[in-house]
Amino acid sequence: MNSITEEILTSTLIKRAEDSYKGTYGKVLVIGGNEDMGGAAILTASAAVYSGAGLVTVATAKANHVSLHARLPEAMVVDSTDLKKVTEQVEKTDVIVIGPGLGLSQEALDVLTTVFSSVSQEQHVVIDGSAISLMAEHDLPYPKTQVIYTPHVGEWKKMTGLSQAEQEGEANAIQQKKIGGTIVLKSNRTKVYFNDAAWKNTAGNPAMATGGMGDTLAGMIAGFVAQFDDKEKAILAAVFLHSKIGDTLAEKQYVVLPSQIIEEIPYTMKHYSQK
Amino acid sequence: MNSITEEILTSTLIKRAEDSYKGTYGKVLVIGGNEDMGGAAILTASAAVYSGAGLVTVATAKANHVSLHARLPEAMVVDSTDLKKVTEQVEKTDVIVIGPGLGLSQEALDVLTTVFSSVSQEQHVVIDGSAISLMAEHDLPYPKTQVIYTPHVGEWKKMTGLSQAEQEGEANAIQQKKIGGTIVLKSNRTKVYFNDAAWKNTAGNPAMATGGMGDTLAGMIAGFVAQFDDKEKAILAAVFLHSKIGDTLAEKQYVVLPSQIIEEIPYTMKHYSQK
Amino acid sequence: MNSITEEILTSTLIKRAEDSYKGTYGKVLVIGGNEDMGGAAILTASAAVYSGAGLVTVATAKANHVSLHARLPEAMVVDSTDLKKVTEQVEKTDVIVIGPGLGLSQEALDVLTTVFSSVSQEQHVVIDGSAISLMAEHDLPYPKTQVIYTPHVGEWKKMTGLSQAEQEGEANAIQQKKIGGTIVLKSNRTKVYFNDAAWKNTAGNPAMATGGMGDTLAGMIAGFVAQFDDKEKAILAAVFLHSKIGDTLAEKQYVVLPSQIIEEIPYTMKHYSQK
Amino acid sequence: MNSITEEILTSTLIKRAEDSYKGTYGKVLVIGGNEDMGGAAILTASAAVYSGAGLVTVATAKANHVSLHARLPEAMVVDSTDLKKVTEQVEKTDVIVIGPGLGLSQEALDVLTTVFSSVSQEQHVVIDGSAISLMAEHDLPYPKTQVIYTPHVGEWKKMTGLSQAEQEGEANAIQQKKIGGTIVLKSNRTKVYFNDAAWKNTAGNPAMATGGMGDTLAGMIAGFVAQFDDKEKAILAAVFLHSKIGDTLAEKQYVVLPSQIIEEIPYTMKHYSQK
Repeated sequence: MNSITEEILTSTLIKRAEDSYKGTYGKVLVIGGNEDMGGAAILTASAAVYSGAGLVTVATAKANHVSLHARLPEAMVVDSTDLKKVTEQVEKTDVIVIGPGLGLSQEALDVLTTVFSSVSQEQHVVIDGSAISLMAEHDLPYPKTQVIYTPHVGEWKKMTGLSQAEQEGEANAIQQKKIGGTIVLKSNRTKVYFNDAAWKNTAGNPAMATGGMGDTLAGMIAGFVAQFDDKEKAILAAVFLHSKIGDTLAEKQYVVLPSQIIEEIPYTMKHYSQK
Repeated sequence: MNSITEEILTSTLIKRAEDSYKGTYGKVLVIGGNEDMGGAAILTASAAVYSGAGLVTVATAKANHVSLHARLPEAMVVDSTDLKKVTEQVEKTDVIVIGPGLGLSQEALDVLTTVFSSVSQEQHVVIDGSAISLMAEHDLPYPKTQVIYTPHVGEWKKMTGLSQAEQEGEANAIQQKKIGGTIVLKSNRTKVYFNDAAWKNTAGNPAMATGGMGDTLAGMIAGFVAQFDDKEKAILAAVFLHSKIGDTLAEKQYVVLPSQIIEEIPYTMKHYSQK
Repeated sequence: MNSITEEILTSTLIKRAEDSYKGTYGKVLVIGGNEDMGGAAILTASAAVYSGAGLVTVATAKANHVSLHARLPEAMVVDSTDLKKVTEQVEKTDVIVIGPGLGLSQEALDVLTTVFSSVSQEQHVVIDGSAISLMAEHDLPYPKTQVIYTPHVGEWKKMTGLSQAEQEGEANAIQQKKIGGTIVLKSNRTKVYFNDAAWKNTAGNPAMATGGMGDTLAGMIAGFVAQFDDKEKAILAAVFLHSKIGDTLAEKQYVVLPSQIIEEIPYTMKHYSQK
Repeated sequence: MNSITEEILTSTLIKRAEDSYKGTYGKVLVIGGNEDMGGAAILTASAAVYSGAGLVTVATAKANHVSLHARLPEAMVVDSTDLKKVTEQVEKTDVIVIGPGLGLSQEALDVLTTVFSSVSQEQHVVIDGSAISLMAEHDLPYPKTQVIYTPHVGEWKKMTGLSQAEQEGEANAIQQKKIGGTIVLKSNRTKVYFNDAAWKNTAGNPAMATGGMGDTLAGMIAGFVAQFDDKEKAILAAVFLHSKIGDTLAEKQYVVLPSQIIEEIPYTMKHYSQK
């Protein structure tokens, strides 16, 4: 198993071309946030914007539109129950994150199946949180696109049947081959499984053990995949950056909040881009 | 009477286990905030998140959902008038705070009695503000659970009949035995009464004499009780930390706002965890 | 004409008593903010809280409740069109500010006349912005209470008929005697007229010439009158502090925003309390 | 082609007159922000306030009023679908920005044609984003007022038919003469075309390639045109300042957010005003 270290981040963060514009850095669509869990979608979208995605749109419950804009005027918003609008957005997008705070209702299932039937093979879809649970619960087929799953231990169990004790390197790799796509298995030392390689994070700490951290990581992965050409390195770099910022903040904080991670992204990216 | 000093804080703030996750640090449910006093619930929830609770949910009036998310995307939210949902949340929770900004309406009474009939003996309930007044006014029986009451002088009078002048160490201790649970009697030198011991805070200052300070303390107590095993030390540590941050900020501020206290929590916790 | 200098601020900012609590520092009720001008009420309330008022409530249009809480969870809120609730709040309050962003509608007039008929002689009322215009337009009698008017040049003309050129020291003093109360005549060198003395500010600068500055001053005056015993000195001290913070910020900023003034209040108060 | 350098900024940022007041620095009306793109109007209005406009009002969808106030209490707000109110605001205003996040709906077209039929020759109108697209799509006549167009490459093509490759200095200048007004053609090196001169920016960098940057520039241009007498220099100075702040922030950030640019405006203006 390979180690995810700062080398992946420094080699990913290349200098931006002088004549680039926002379109160069990709469009991200975040789908999530029901009436009770809107904060998750806000964190994911914020992480995508601060990670450098060119343009970010959020499909979320109407109840969350005002709080999203109050925190992040840089994002656009559509009603996630308006499936026609969601489909239009899907078609215009490079990277989709679906799941943060989406919930397990019929409405959530509807938007998930709508997205799965709309995405094309060129698009990248990060499947997180509720979307993983919905897929397992309703036995949905894997969507025909570039998929990145971001389960935590419990969600990986739902996806594979593997108990926590069984979630070892080889067993996980076998499951990845069955499922396809990329598996970002979140834990205190997050592991990433591609078709042909497995990686283990070297950063991260228990001050980050708080609600919203996973939503934030999903947004960072989306932002990186949207703007960098080597998608595998983009995923690994986002995983490392998320934990590395957490480590730096934990030097001065007993607990680290997701929104604090997000604010540091542009500064830490600059730091590693100059190494 | 024992003195609450920094020693309690340093011995409570142990190093977090490397392989811990958000579930390790407990679930907190904040119940409060009617249409006019939503800010109280926001402050309590924010204090719980910044104190290191693993996961925080707020049951509050619908009118407050957007402002909560705009300030604290890390929290989840449910409608406090939806008693079925509140009961479901109570069952999933380790620590409940009920009362901040809850008000004295019939709706407030309904949610209070619903919670009292749902909690189990293993759960911890912080009873604050309006919830104390409602209990006194309606002569509600003490709930069958681990209770922490956080009255100020006027609310302690409602609970016990003791005038301010009568609220002396011995009289208070006798009342604690009658009521059971823990009494956090808030004042410029907050006192804490357990079954077998009484403690007096050594920190705090009049720059903190402003609306919302009590709501903030309630959230910090909940966050500490959720994550630390020794519940008595957790309560004392939260009381000291709240006042100590206030003392530090008051060196540069004539008045100290609750939201300013909250932002300092992670840094001051780190400071004392390294002593 | 006397000069308002830092001496007034240093002698007003006495050390707070150790055993004081939020009730010691007074209750402020801000009445203002219609559907289009809610920001004014937010600024006034924030200024009152950051100035050290013990407890602040805002009566404003429902449309503004969420934005108020999102910025200032320390305040409580009631619907300004619910005249029964407003009257109840008036009765519980020490200092009222009426006018910021209130507008000139029939609804605004209704709340103004309701307040005027509810206030008692012991209460202090700051009459600002739209409330001054409404009084002039509808020829309302001066309310029977301790009044502080905070007109700018145009509003002072409406109150007195004096053109800008005629707004000289003597003519203004004569008008103050006719009207009663205190006149805070806002300009680049604000003047304050009491029954027996006139004062002129020595601080202030054109970087402060931006919308919301007057609303902020009204809130600071209310916060100071609520907590300090010498009401005349409290008013003068608030006027000086507002401009002095503006002067300090203008050393590094070409323009100074009201919300930036507000954040500095606790620090600058501390500074002068130690002189 | 002339170069836009810091000299334009230093000569524009004159010392404000001591006896000036908010009216001296002009009224700006921002018209934009439909239900899905409210953030754009928030950024434009914030940029105008932080640039020093005396008074800023926003006409936007009702859905955006709360988020605007939560971020910017200094602004006033009206409903952009209330055309009577919008017309009243247009009449009271010095500078109008129309377009950021306005969208392409019939409602958007209605407010655009209403504004075009209300403006007078003395007023300045910044036409941005959706408003440019609407004009091209519906072949609207150029409004009879002082117009500043702020197209990006794609919008300039809609206005002129020129492909990106054809958008050269001479061809652009010919188009400007046909259209009239000022053209601010946004790119990594923004060009400005007046009747008698063309200018090219020397600042700007690819860290600024993110959604909302154009909305922010539109607000800065409006704020500068509102307060400075030489309108051509005001436009050039705003263009330079926007990019220059971006360059400074990019020294420490891999990406730069529009809201971060906005917060720096008062400080950077001060810096150049002292050169």
